[in-house]
Amino acid sequence: MKIAIDAMGGDRGTEVTVKGSVDAVNELGVNVVLVGKEEIIKKELSKYKFDKSKVEILNANEIINTDEKPVAAIRRKKDSSMVKALKLVKDKEADAIVSAGSTGALLSGGLFVVGRIKGIDRPALSPVYPTEKGVSLLIDAGANVDCKPKNLQQFAIMGSIYAEKVLDINNPKVGLINIGDEESKGNELTKESFKLLKETKVNFYGNLEVREIPKGECDVLVCDGFVGNTILKLTEGLASSIFSALKNEFMKNIKTKFGALLLKSGLKNFKKRMDYSEYGGALLLGVKGGVIKAHGSSDEKAFKNAIRQAKIFSENNVVEIIQNEIIKMEGDNG
Amino acid sequence: MKIAIDAMGGDRGTEVTVKGSVDAVNELGVNVVLVGKEEIIKKELSKYKFDKSKVEILNANEIINTDEKPVAAIRRKKDSSMVKALKLVKDKEADAIVSAGSTGALLSGGLFVVGRIKGIDRPALSPVYPTEKGVSLLIDAGANVDCKPKNLQQFAIMGSIYAEKVLDINNPKVGLINIGDEESKGNELTKESFKLLKETKVNFYGNLEVREIPKGECDVLVCDGFVGNTILKLTEGLASSIFSALKNEFMKNIKTKFGALLLKSGLKNFKKRMDYSEYGGALLLGVKGGVIKAHGSSDEKAFKNAIRQAKIFSENNVVEIIQNEIIKMEGDNG
Repeated sequence: MKIAIDAMGGDRGTEVTVKGSVDAVNELGVNVVLVGKEEIIKKELSKYKFDKSKVEILNANEIINTDEKPVAAIRRKKDSSMVKALKLVKDKEADAIVSAGSTGALLSGGLFVVGRIKGIDRPALSPVYPTEKGVSLLIDAGANVDCKPKNLQQFAIMGSIYAEKVLDINNPKVGLINIGDEESKGNELTKESFKLLKETKVNFYGNLEVREIPKGECDVLVCDGFVGNTILKLTEGLASSIFSALKNEFMKNIKTKFGALLLKSGLKNFKKRMDYSEYGGALLLGVKGGVIKAHGSSDEKAFKNAIRQAKIFSENNVVEIIQNEIIKMEGDNG
Repeated sequence: MKIAIDAMGGDRGTEVTVKGSVDAVNELGVNVVLVGKEEIIKKELSKYKFDKSKVEILNANEIINTDEKPVAAIRRKKDSSMVKALKLVKDKEADAIVSAGSTGALLSGGLFVVGRIKGIDRPALSPVYPTEKGVSLLIDAGANVDCKPKNLQQFAIMGSIYAEKVLDINNPKVGLINIGDEESKGNELTKESFKLLKETKVNFYGNLEVREIPKGECDVLVCDGFVGNTILKLTEGLASSIFSALKNEFMKNIKTKFGALLLKSGLKNFKKRMDYSEYGGALLLGVKGGVIKAHGSSDEKAFKNAIRQAKIFSENNVVEIIQNEIIKMEGDNG
């Protein structure tokens, strides 16, 4: 099992990507190829102990920034850490790539370098979303900001497969994220998608009202990438805002400080459940290889967990399964 | 000051609408016209003490349900509590209407019965959103699920006026809700809207990343109604989910129960700040009268606060001010 690492991607750079990779090598037994500026990577590696035979370095002199036009960046920067890492996946020299860099660029790279699975129109970003019951799979979380109903139908199929084969959820419930639960509610996209999903061979729950998402009623949450990204980012923003508000209340005086002390472990459990970094990265479902987007602001723990996902994804041959299921379903549909 | 009440609207019916109205009469000194099934309203009213001269009843035999096609319902059900209450506003027999009924129907009624302000293409639902700094105004929160850039531009103008004149915020910062802060980020709608807002005479902050919303950086949050409704409903869902999770942690054992007891008032303050019902309803900005949508699941407190908003809105002549500002701005722009 070999994972290609875009060592230069992410808000916090090689400090996080190299440490996260070393931890993954030591704890998960994977092999990694660190792609990026060799001298910087070597300098970071020198801080840690690990099995040298499990870590390679592939030099790349360019870096793709988050404000670059994705398609142009992928086409132009052949010597970038992201493109070179993607090439390793395309050439089957690595099973998967993990990058905390530009989401748009990684999507374009997934499309133009690794390539789409036959029958999939639009690959989608699919992170897990923490709920009261455990986790749901959110698809699409930001890869496709403007979608057609057909895209959402394929998201439902891919998400359903991923939830069943990797998250090990039996006959996963697929909900269409909407602003109301009646079939008549929603915008043009959700109304048309509802009709399509009724005809699709997934366990379709119907419209899932946004307000119900945190309860974990559905295993797969289907929406366009703009709405999915909004759900993900608002959840992060609210969680951190709520924690700081609670902290202020708890630090008010001796009494509250003592109260908070008694609740410490409970609050810790709770915070852990809400912390996206516990759940690693988002998979780009629909391309011919493991393409995992780690959160841009990942710490080494989040980055390591993204590498763990890459490992599980590859071990379970999800790409092959999606390909077969899509071909079968498309065949059934006409 | 006379407020027309759609007594039959809302998930919890006359029990909430009548009690909320009676509380408003007693605490805010407004006059109300309760529109709906007379005998049911009378039966509810008989439970409470209030100044009889401040409460009228207007009988209406029909009710508009949330699953009805809004436009058809408004056109067909002339004898419904919502349509009759809207007519009172159109005919200037009431200053504003408060309804907890179908959002879609109330929007259609605002358009077809009360009528749009000259120059406004799409009236918008605009509730206040609690943040770390206080509140922001969210516009549109669900009235227009499919929007054009021109609509978002007008939302920015109306929201800016409302925030300045009613919420008393000086030179309010207007943020375009987006999934990234760079100008190049977003979907077709936000990219085009960004260009328009740069040319618009509002204090334009630029793109506001969804994750930053809870910090309260901007006073006015501009987005299409699907995204706005998603933000509002996810916030409600997460808040209630987080509170129940905290409660579970706090009820675990004697130690945690004692800790929670010491933190009781702090947790109460915090919950109150997150509680939408503290902030009443959402205004339908852009129509020729006060049209206030109370939350469908409002309790009597939320409904009373919606009536308070109707009062403030009317006292401050917001309709007139928006009309003048729009005419002026449209004049400047062309």
